[in-house]
Amino acid sequence: MSISLHNVKRKLIGEPFPNHLEIHERLDKMRALAVFASDPISSNAYATEAIMSVLLLIGAGALRFTLPLALAVAGLVLLVIFSYIQTILHYPDGGGAYTVTKDNLGETPSLFAGAALLTDYILTVSVSVAAGIRAITSAQPALRPYAIPLALLAILILTWINLRGVRESGTIFAIPTYLFVVGVLLTVFIGLIRITGFFGASHPVPITPEEIASNGQTITTFLFIWLLLRAFAAGTTALTGIEAISNGVQAFKPPEAKNAAKTMVIMGVIAMSLFIGITFVVSQLHLIPNESESILSQMTRTVTNGLPGGIVLYYWVQIFTMLILILAANTGYQDFPRLSSFLAKDGYLPRWMQNRGDRLVYNGGIVTLAIIASLVIIVFRADEIAMLPLYALGVMLSFSLSQFGMFKLMGRIAHLKPGETLKTHVTTIHYEKGTRWKRALNGVGSAVTFVVLLILIATKFVEGAWIIILAVPLLVFAFRTIKHHYNHVAKDLSMQNFDPSQLRDIANIAIVPISDIHRGTSRALRYACRLSDHVEAVYISTSEESKKRIQEKWAKYPELTQGVHLHIIDYEYRDILTPLEAYIAYIAEEVYPGSLITVVIPEFVPERFSARFLHNQTATLLRLRLKSHDNVVIIDVPYLIREA
Amino acid sequence: MSISLHNVKRKLIGEPFPNHLEIHERLDKMRALAVFASDPISSNAYATEAIMSVLLLIGAGALRFTLPLALAVAGLVLLVIFSYIQTILHYPDGGGAYTVTKDNLGETPSLFAGAALLTDYILTVSVSVAAGIRAITSAQPALRPYAIPLALLAILILTWINLRGVRESGTIFAIPTYLFVVGVLLTVFIGLIRITGFFGASHPVPITPEEIASNGQTITTFLFIWLLLRAFAAGTTALTGIEAISNGVQAFKPPEAKNAAKTMVIMGVIAMSLFIGITFVVSQLHLIPNESESILSQMTRTVTNGLPGGIVLYYWVQIFTMLILILAANTGYQDFPRLSSFLAKDGYLPRWMQNRGDRLVYNGGIVTLAIIASLVIIVFRADEIAMLPLYALGVMLSFSLSQFGMFKLMGRIAHLKPGETLKTHVTTIHYEKGTRWKRALNGVGSAVTFVVLLILIATKFVEGAWIIILAVPLLVFAFRTIKHHYNHVAKDLSMQNFDPSQLRDIANIAIVPISDIHRGTSRALRYACRLSDHVEAVYISTSEESKKRIQEKWAKYPELTQGVHLHIIDYEYRDILTPLEAYIAYIAEEVYPGSLITVVIPEFVPERFSARFLHNQTATLLRLRLKSHDNVVIIDVPYLIREA
Repeated sequence: MSISLHNVKRKLIGEPFPNHLEIHERLDKMRALAVFASDPISSNAYATEAIMSVLLLIGAGALRFTLPLALAVAGLVLLVIFSYIQTILHYPDGGGAYTVTKDNLGETPSLFAGAALLTDYILTVSVSVAAGIRAITSAQPALRPYAIPLALLAILILTWINLRGVRESGTIFAIPTYLFVVGVLLTVFIGLIRITGFFGASHPVPITPEEIASNGQTITTFLFIWLLLRAFAAGTTALTGIEAISNGVQAFKPPEAKNAAKTMVIMGVIAMSLFIGITFVVSQLHLIPNESESILSQMTRTVTNGLPGGIVLYYWVQIFTMLILILAANTGYQDFPRLSSFLAKDGYLPRWMQNRGDRLVYNGGIVTLAIIASLVIIVFRADEIAMLPLYALGVMLSFSLSQFGMFKLMGRIAHLKPGETLKTHVTTIHYEKGTRWKRALNGVGSAVTFVVLLILIATKFVEGAWIIILAVPLLVFAFRTIKHHYNHVAKDLSMQNFDPSQLRDIANIAIVPISDIHRGTSRALRYACRLSDHVEAVYISTSEESKKRIQEKWAKYPELTQGVHLHIIDYEYRDILTPLEAYIAYIAEEVYPGSLITVVIPEFVPERFSARFLHNQTATLLRLRLKSHDNVVIIDVPYLIREA
Repeated sequence: MSISLHNVKRKLIGEPFPNHLEIHERLDKMRALAVFASDPISSNAYATEAIMSVLLLIGAGALRFTLPLALAVAGLVLLVIFSYIQTILHYPDGGGAYTVTKDNLGETPSLFAGAALLTDYILTVSVSVAAGIRAITSAQPALRPYAIPLALLAILILTWINLRGVRESGTIFAIPTYLFVVGVLLTVFIGLIRITGFFGASHPVPITPEEIASNGQTITTFLFIWLLLRAFAAGTTALTGIEAISNGVQAFKPPEAKNAAKTMVIMGVIAMSLFIGITFVVSQLHLIPNESESILSQMTRTVTNGLPGGIVLYYWVQIFTMLILILAANTGYQDFPRLSSFLAKDGYLPRWMQNRGDRLVYNGGIVTLAIIASLVIIVFRADEIAMLPLYALGVMLSFSLSQFGMFKLMGRIAHLKPGETLKTHVTTIHYEKGTRWKRALNGVGSAVTFVVLLILIATKFVEGAWIIILAVPLLVFAFRTIKHHYNHVAKDLSMQNFDPSQLRDIANIAIVPISDIHRGTSRALRYACRLSDHVEAVYISTSEESKKRIQEKWAKYPELTQGVHLHIIDYEYRDILTPLEAYIAYIAEEVYPGSLITVVIPEFVPERFSARFLHNQTATLLRLRLKSHDNVVIIDVPYLIREA
């Protein structure tokens, strides 16, 4: 019964929220930071190591470049954050890269930005969950064969929490995020104090490319620069997720834009403190990446070594690193449903993706994300190393497009005089100062992220980046096809030039397909007689006995069958729907062309939902087939079987 | 479009066969042997080894018991085959253990026999496919991580072939079955010739249990006997599948029963020649089972060693062993759908399982089997070693029950005088001679198979047999529940004591839920006005703007809305189906209790099937919810969106 299904849903998801509670479900800055920043903050678990791994290809000596490169990445992060704060303030209704691009660069670039971000949000979920599960199976190797089911279970849990509502998931996710930040900051702080003694020892020495190759062989200047660029590109993994807040402005308590901008600044400060702090301490401790232990773990171990209670801090950081890696997936759960609702509102995705569910979250998007991310997990067998080459491309493309959009917008604002306003397609812009340097920063940001995108494509193409390069245009094509369909439907349904005489006539006939004469069919026959004085009962006979049986029964109940014509069709196959559909189509198209004809289907429905699969689904299948006939009205006359 | 879906189905499954072609689709003895005997013949790939592996627990010396035990198993096989030939001749409509048990022992034992066999047929498919895939991944270890997907693919292919029809699958499966038989018989024959020289060397020596334990420690007589029994039970794996023909008598060309009985004899001769031949040659060659090479492979290698062209024969046997192991699964595809159609005809399984599909095979059963066998593959991670303890239990239970049934039947026949006949529930029995010894053989067979069942349970309980011991009674319970439901439905629908005045009145009201006013809803409104002069359009408003908009549109088209009452319901949640259902339920139960009310649903249907997911499925969901209301007639008024 649907009522009991409802109860199950309520138990799982919680009581529905009325619309007016929407404002109550909004996030304060504390929760918003946890919800949106778990991805960028979690990248500190591996961003430094990503740079160092590439530098090691040059030689151990090249590790001296880690800190300068990290500073360059941090500079880029600041640029991007600056650009997104501008976006938030100028587009307070949210939408981030998609909206900015749509408003300033046009439809096609905006669809590319949208498609790129959607693919990346899916990967955020798959990669984070797989990485988290790997952390667990590393600790408990007995669980390794169950990596895929465990990852799917993690996705199920994340989906469930997110379906329960934004504020509730914010509360759940806040604790591990903050405990991770506190643990790492404490480690970095202790590290800085302990290092102080080492400071005097390090004397910068000028380095030439030739000296750096630790294996004795010289490398060309070109290769050296190329590897530095790759190390830089690897470090930009720290950028993923920093755009999340720009999509979710409307999830903040009012004043939305201001709170979102402030949260973005706090996020930038925290994430960059961690990143530079970790990189600095790691450089000073001369740690070298190795396969068996992560750099973060090495650093924490070295710093807490011999410290009273140090072991507690060590495990603290380890445990919350693992947790925040899984929780980073939650950023995908925030972003994907919001962005897809923006695209759905504009008609580029199925309309049901724009609706909020009982708990005021975008159910359609959440479930779609969960399904696709699960498929990615299965296809890649929960191996996040294999997924990584696909990751970050989409983010970089959207950064570049979005900042180029802001670059153009700033150009238009520069022409405004004080007091003037500019109405774009989606927002209203007022005069402001400093557009020239804002414009320059956005232009530089766009160019740098574009170069990073090209480096990412060049270095990871064969390992999987090609999938994204293929998928994004295909998605854009799908968006356009969907939009085209909706436009067409709207035109077709429009009441413009509506003329009541165009409405089809209703033919005086009712066809009742029957398989027997029982209380269910007798009710349908009776309803049909009420509708029309020309009722035809149609029976498909596959054997002589069945034909005789129905004729005898027909004669036995004259009070039911009087005035009704019994039409028996002999048929030699077992698929009785085909002759039924053919006969109905014949009546509709040959006998009453241009009119609506009526088919009355007797349907008996067991009271218990679980019993429904015990009955021939002939009625359901017939309805499905007749649906493609424009001029057939279908009437279901139910007969409920009550349980004894 | 349903039409193009149809074309796809025709391409995959083939053109439908008319009913009269059923006789043409029947199997000749040659094909029947391949279809039904691939399981018992394929057991020769491992049955000898199964006995030897248990004997090795006693010691290498105990391998001398292999041949005597194999002869005992062969004796049991002959007993069972004899019993089933009696079954076929007395129950020419087929049905095997289920029918015999139902007719002679009553409902409950027959349901146990049916449930036991169904579980075993599922395992036949899962175990055979998993074993075949293991053979492939042993040869190509790179494929091992893909064992599960490969196994699922094999099931998909088997399903596809079986959906195309019995005769076609018979043709496909005949070739590898016969080539396997020819290869192994040739090997055994060459082996016998080569062994002749060894014959003089073997002198039987009396053996005591104490001498046999090769590791020096003595074992008790009790343990010795217990291990011999276990070895015997392990050898009974050769019995699985020999009952297949008894279920499928109606798949044979007429005279059905005679042809089936003859095929059964041929099958017994072939299977036992192989079994005794392999066991004899293996014993004479003093081969010992080891993990890295199967006994069959060892035998073939030894026999063909140094023979001109011997390598060809060796690979011949290896390749067709692998193929027949996978094809053994096909016996499950023959048996499961047939047996489930018998159960469905008696009302113990959903009725759609009794119907034949377009190609005259039991589609419902084939697809159900494929789904359950796939789930077993996934749960057991395609590891047939883990599944084996569950296997053969069901077969043994059904053997024991079926032979006990024949034992009782023979007792009744013994009382007949020449010329007399006996009508049981399902068949007619004539006087015959020799009932006394036939009865004795059936009794012995029933007792021996029951003992084997107990041994199997005792030795494999912890490793997985408990799953079957749990599943079979649960299945019996499900059969009974389904039967109870169908009985109840038949009673509820029955026309007995039918009185036309009991039919419900049809209330003069038509409710039309609308979301907008467009060409789709206007058609529905028009149809409703034709039905009744009391039409209510119901609109769920979630905001003031939407309310205003619908009121304005309503006023704009008086030619449509005149005489129709617009009822607007304000609602604060997004789930608009709840207030709609509540309102309709209110009208049905409070305003017109006891009468049928009518709901007209405007439904717009995109012409292209793929576009349907782009539309809010509100109409479909509303119909689903209203289905549980006995007194609501639902009318779908379609509006087809044509593609541009």
